Amino acid sequence: MQRSLALAARAVGFTNPNPAVGCVIVSADGQRVLGEGHTQPVGGPHAEVMALRDAAAQGHSVAGATAYVTLEPCAHYGRTPPCCDALVAAGLGRVVAALADPNPQVAGQGLARLQAAGIAVEVGDGAEQARQLNLGFLQRMETGRPWLRAKVAASIDGYTALPDGQSQWITSPAARADGQRWRARADVVLTGIGTVLADDPQLNVRDWRSPDSALPQRQPHLAIVDSQLRTPLHARLWQVPGRQVWIVAQALADGDDAAWAQAQRNKQQALEAQGARVLRVALTPSTAASAASGLDLHAAIGALSAAMPLNEIHVEAGASLNAGLLQAGLVDEWLLYVAPAMLGLGRGMATLPQPLDSLAQAPRYRWLEPRLVGPDLCLRALRQDMSHNDHHNDYHSDAAQS
Amino acid sequence: MQRSLALAARAVGFTNPNPAVGCVIVSADGQRVLGEGHTQPVGGPHAEVMALRDAAAQGHSVAGATAYVTLEPCAHYGRTPPCCDALVAAGLGRVVAALADPNPQVAGQGLARLQAAGIAVEVGDGAEQARQLNLGFLQRMETGRPWLRAKVAASIDGYTALPDGQSQWITSPAARADGQRWRARADVVLTGIGTVLADDPQLNVRDWRSPDSALPQRQPHLAIVDSQLRTPLHARLWQVPGRQVWIVAQALADGDDAAWAQAQRNKQQALEAQGARVLRVALTPSTAASAASGLDLHAAIGALSAAMPLNEIHVEAGASLNAGLLQAGLVDEWLLYVAPAMLGLGRGMATLPQPLDSLAQAPRYRWLEPRLVGPDLCLRALRQDMSHNDHHNDYHSDAAQS
Repeated sequence: MQRSLALAARAVGFTNPNPAVGCVIVSADGQRVLGEGHTQPVGGPHAEVMALRDAAAQGHSVAGATAYVTLEPCAHYGRTPPCCDALVAAGLGRVVAALADPNPQVAGQGLARLQAAGIAVEVGDGAEQARQLNLGFLQRMETGRPWLRAKVAASIDGYTALPDGQSQWITSPAARADGQRWRARADVVLTGIGTVLADDPQLNVRDWRSPDSALPQRQPHLAIVDSQLRTPLHARLWQVPGRQVWIVAQALADGDDAAWAQAQRNKQQALEAQGARVLRVALTPSTAASAASGLDLHAAIGALSAAMPLNEIHVEAGASLNAGLLQAGLVDEWLLYVAPAMLGLGRGMATLPQPLDSLAQAPRYRWLEPRLVGPDLCLRALRQDMSHNDHHNDYHSDAAQS
Repeated sequence: MQRSLALAARAVGFTNPNPAVGCVIVSADGQRVLGEGHTQPVGGPHAEVMALRDAAAQGHSVAGATAYVTLEPCAHYGRTPPCCDALVAAGLGRVVAALADPNPQVAGQGLARLQAAGIAVEVGDGAEQARQLNLGFLQRMETGRPWLRAKVAASIDGYTALPDGQSQWITSPAARADGQRWRARADVVLTGIGTVLADDPQLNVRDWRSPDSALPQRQPHLAIVDSQLRTPLHARLWQVPGRQVWIVAQALADGDDAAWAQAQRNKQQALEAQGARVLRVALTPSTAASAASGLDLHAAIGALSAAMPLNEIHVEAGASLNAGLLQAGLVDEWLLYVAPAMLGLGRGMATLPQPLDSLAQAPRYRWLEPRLVGPDLCLRALRQDMSHNDHHNDYHSDAAQS
């Protein structure tokens, strides 16, 4: 299973919106690896089929063999035929899956079909590691919501920039390169108009490739929370090929000032001519909750999720949008790079408009094992109440992609 | 040597102001442990003598044996006779020391005396670990300055309290218990009058004992930066037996308002009647540098160091005193406990009166390996430019304690 997990890890970020899965087929006596593989980019074969092909290419029979897979084999026709049928046809004797697939089109059916065909089935070995590789896919299948990871680079004392905005660079090249890896596995990078105007960033993947060099580079899309459509037409973000730019703006309403509304329509046209797609969402009902742009951020994430299948949203934004997402309960993970420097004064990670009344109100996370990246720390905090396969499909609607 | 380091670790915090040292004596063929020990509380035997006694008590001859010690054996008469003489008299064949002793009264003489007596000598095995156990002693011997560790409990976003001061409790009981261990190894706990007035803390060691239960509990002293002598006579800090309370206040000067000066003298008398000792130091020459009380913090640390031998100062203070110490270049280490919670707004770790002009001005540290303590992170950042035995005794003056 450890080898299967390692194979899956190579594919993370290259299979979206499908999950990255690894499969190793081992002889019945456990002595020989017969074949192995991982999920290919969308439309291509899944891990099980890659492993079966690998075994066939080496002239190995897999009759009676054991397959170790990091996720329950699929049982439905998507872009490819069901993997469980391929395993049955190949005559495997036993399948060990790290996780059951919460995809409602699979949801235990894959395992059931294997068992019905007389294949022994086990689930659970390596479950936590398998979950980490596909946090977004699993949460999307379980709840309909993508996994939202907010990345922050900060000083020891928690500042992301000096008060005047200087932030290049608090963290080291090693930390920034590590950050590329997380961008790369996301479906979309989300930022705010403040960051676009202040830093003119590209927010693309530049220095990250899979250890499996056969996998083609993939560029996550870019989404900008920009209620008034202030994104400049000459920003550097337009220079990145191979991705869609989405702009989430304030919905136009009947009572709007006519000149303002016309200006908004003109801006939208210009941005669309540039290649952007503009989504319009309502303002948040309560202005008290409007930490950021005033946009209803639940609606913003909902609109993006409706427009494309989103497993993971990678946020690189300023204190205001981060705070809006935090207040809306949308931040599933904080990914922090912390430099060993003290600033003494600066900009916060997520600045709420009002202080909390008590410490008990503070949103709680749980730390993963910390690690050093060059001279900096990489810290990950995951939402404490996050589901672990224990509730399913609360408001699922998307068709699963496969 | 690993066993010697483990023995030394048991004694850390119980031997002040002496270094905590471990010693294991092994037969010449390396097959048998003949005796072992660690430094006893001040005035008691050092590690080498404890190990020799242990061997004798077991009836082992140590002629020709090897002693592994975590610090060069002492060569001078202090409260006890020189350890190197005891090793020579016992007829050891070889001594392996993790570190040479930077104590100017030892400084290679211990090793030289051993060699002169025909004992083989090696230095360097386990040096970094040995250094960590006695950071304060080593820095004091090398530079005359104690090691200053500032402890902070904070949220993910770097806040130590809500804006209104609520801070109990950001971190977990496990983290607070771990913090006791660091208090316990210090010679003095340093705080500011702001913390005394706001939290009425005791700042003593309550829940920490050595794994060696024979070692008696030791209470670090308490020092308060309190320029106007506002420490209340009924504060809880007076309830702790077995320690001295030091108060560092503003020096009285000729030009002072007579009524104010008389009030200061009265307050000093009342505090001294309570058992405190009051040290008076000048205001900082430049008001621009007066992040905290306006006291010259170099002078404050100097006055405390002159009053008692200080290896480690453990700071638990608010943003103002922390910033003053940071600005003065006095913080050798940040000890952070970080809870997995977001506050959004709050009080900083060390709030400078003016922002830095550029990121390049930020004081730099280096991270030690991070670790989880219960649900919280424990992070340690050490001053980047700290000496590693590579420069000695820049302005040393203290008599070494031994």
